[in-house]
Amino acid sequence: MNNSKFIVIEGLEGAGKTSAIQTVIDTLKEQGITNLAFTREPGGTPLAEKLRELIKQGIDGEKVTDKAELLMLYAARVQLVENVIKPALAEGKWVIGDRHDLSSQAYQGGGRGLDKDLMLSLRNTVLGDFRPDLTLYLDLDPAIGLARARARGELDRIEKESMDFFYRTRERYQALAKGDDSIITIDASQAIEKVQADIRQTLTTWLVQQENKSL
Amino acid sequence: MNNSKFIVIEGLEGAGKTSAIQTVIDTLKEQGITNLAFTREPGGTPLAEKLRELIKQGIDGEKVTDKAELLMLYAARVQLVENVIKPALAEGKWVIGDRHDLSSQAYQGGGRGLDKDLMLSLRNTVLGDFRPDLTLYLDLDPAIGLARARARGELDRIEKESMDFFYRTRERYQALAKGDDSIITIDASQAIEKVQADIRQTLTTWLVQQENKSL
Repeated sequence: MNNSKFIVIEGLEGAGKTSAIQTVIDTLKEQGITNLAFTREPGGTPLAEKLRELIKQGIDGEKVTDKAELLMLYAARVQLVENVIKPALAEGKWVIGDRHDLSSQAYQGGGRGLDKDLMLSLRNTVLGDFRPDLTLYLDLDPAIGLARARARGELDRIEKESMDFFYRTRERYQALAKGDDSIITIDASQAIEKVQADIRQTLTTWLVQQENKSL
Repeated sequence: MNNSKFIVIEGLEGAGKTSAIQTVIDTLKEQGITNLAFTREPGGTPLAEKLRELIKQGIDGEKVTDKAELLMLYAARVQLVENVIKPALAEGKWVIGDRHDLSSQAYQGGGRGLDKDLMLSLRNTVLGDFRPDLTLYLDLDPAIGLARARARGELDRIEKESMDFFYRTRERYQALAKGDDSIITIDASQAIEKVQADIRQTLTTWLVQQENKSL
């Protein structure tokens, strides 16, 4: 039986996603789960990476409209899901995702305030019933996260948004996490050791639950 | 008062769109309408042209899924409508479009059989109530059109589809034209002089109607 899972790490810029992914990998390996694949969104296929570049940098100074951004994000996502994630899961690989659909729901739906019907229609018709098995959402005050991201260097087009944008995005993340059992919130404002310990414990508990379910 | 209009030419490959556009330009100029702008879809802005290239040629041999194709077409369209067509109309220009939304409805909706709810949701939410004032649909048996297109040289990814695809596309074009007063069907199987005469007469009649309406 194929028990492979799709686990996604979500959160605002500077919330600690890269470190969290490493903790997830370490925890899975300790449990003997070593057949892993990795994705980051937007991106992960030649076309999706090209779309990522266009979304992040634009082209010839042309304003990328909010709607075009959203449509390109979903175009990149459907390429990644159909050409990479589903085939990897079918081969028995566990897939660790750096962002997935929840990012669009939070950034474009919450941050940019795009129409809820369009967001829902896109998600349901483009992705069908495909969903991550587990999402770890790293919750952090945007002011802290952005200070960390800034300290790392250049900010891209989206990262240059106003603080209001990021507060709206966080609010949507929090609301969606509250209403969905497959999303677990991690308090990313804690010391890094505590964040790592929380992720490790959350994931270990979840793995035991999955094992019991499949018995 | 600003009476500028958006006039679109639609039809399958080889139906004679380029020649039809020239006839539209000539007819408008004879009526003293000379402040014109031109668009072709997908394309017409730096980002939209980049998306056109990716849709038509793909990248690194990656399969472009039907859904990604549709989303990229709408991303290109929203860029063109917001950044080019609406500003041109606001400046009093008449805009002549080589294809617009009806192409997606016919090719992706009819030809590829994509979900009607998604098509409708995309059109309504992405474009709002923005519609061409007049669409001239050049109706032609795909077998004849494709033979003409082939004679002109290389066919692109979409033009290499099966004949069934083009018959489904034509059927959807015909059905949509039947249900929409702003779409006028031109029989493109006639001799080119007769096609040109039909376009000239149709457009002249329509212009008189518009003038009467605005009185």
